[in-house]
Amino acid sequence: MNFHLKEAIEVLERTPQTLEYFLSGLSDGWVQCNEGEGTWNVVEVIEHLIEGEKTNWVPRLEFIIQEGESKPFPPFDRYAHLNEKAEKSFEQKLHEFKTIRASNIAKLKELVAPEAHLELTGIHPALGVVKLRELLSTWVVHDLTHMAQIVRVMAERYRADVGPWKQYLGILKK
Amino acid sequence: MNFHLKEAIEVLERTPQTLEYFLSGLSDGWVQCNEGEGTWNVVEVIEHLIEGEKTNWVPRLEFIIQEGESKPFPPFDRYAHLNEKAEKSFEQKLHEFKTIRASNIAKLKELVAPEAHLELTGIHPALGVVKLRELLSTWVVHDLTHMAQIVRVMAERYRADVGPWKQYLGILKK
Repeated sequence: MNFHLKEAIEVLERTPQTLEYFLSGLSDGWVQCNEGEGTWNVVEVIEHLIEGEKTNWVPRLEFIIQEGESKPFPPFDRYAHLNEKAEKSFEQKLHEFKTIRASNIAKLKELVAPEAHLELTGIHPALGVVKLRELLSTWVVHDLTHMAQIVRVMAERYRADVGPWKQYLGILKK
Repeated sequence: MNFHLKEAIEVLERTPQTLEYFLSGLSDGWVQCNEGEGTWNVVEVIEHLIEGEKTNWVPRLEFIIQEGESKPFPPFDRYAHLNEKAEKSFEQKLHEFKTIRASNIAKLKELVAPEAHLELTGIHPALGVVKLRELLSTWVVHDLTHMAQIVRVMAERYRADVGPWKQYLGILKK
């Protein structure tokens, strides 16, 4: 196992500002493109990350600490953000992600004592028994998977433009 | 085709600072991990990006403008950075990438007039006839592919730590 709380927080606290720096001010072409019907553009990925901050990571963390294995996590809707038609600009959403993440990291530091809590367990409605440590590891890898998605969606836009170089570019293999 | 010089530059100019923000100050565990024997860690990816700035993108751009299809691009070594045992810190390398990229974007803006140059052609030693526009698109997608690699390498470190959540995390599928 490689998980250390301090190192996990290093990634969690960098993600929002990294994405804000990379995505803020980009042309609509980059921000609105997707990988085809039913796939997300960059804005929708950020909305999904915000939704996770609201309903997934810290609420489940608190649930494990309070309830243990006495009842499964309440379900949440991974597509909830697609129904929310908020009138916020993309820049406001990037800022919202940064703010809510900072607040959640503060809660994480307050709630979790590594020696006491990392091995606590809860019940995931589909996956069964999970550890608090696994939830926190997943929070980190979830950031990384959506950062990978963002650059993959953007690369897709130039699939035809790169011409014969396509075969050298791993991100276009699919 | 989706390529526009202005939009391509938007990505090229964001990459180094995005990576500097994301990677600077991370624990050795994140910076030194790789995906197994013969694969690159995050430092080696940054070294490869620096090498590309020195020997690949702008030199080939100049070669197309000067030589056209009269002779193929001089070859370069994609693994050159692995033999260079420079005594620079990771932070110094991140800074070097930022500096050399800024200088190369300035050259790009000076050398390329979109109306006049994008359709110019050169000879890639393995791929044959390529367009200047394709070279520039590839520069952008090359950034994106190595950003995807960086987050994938980091995610790999927590493959076991996420426990049963592994099946929900696309970045761990391989």
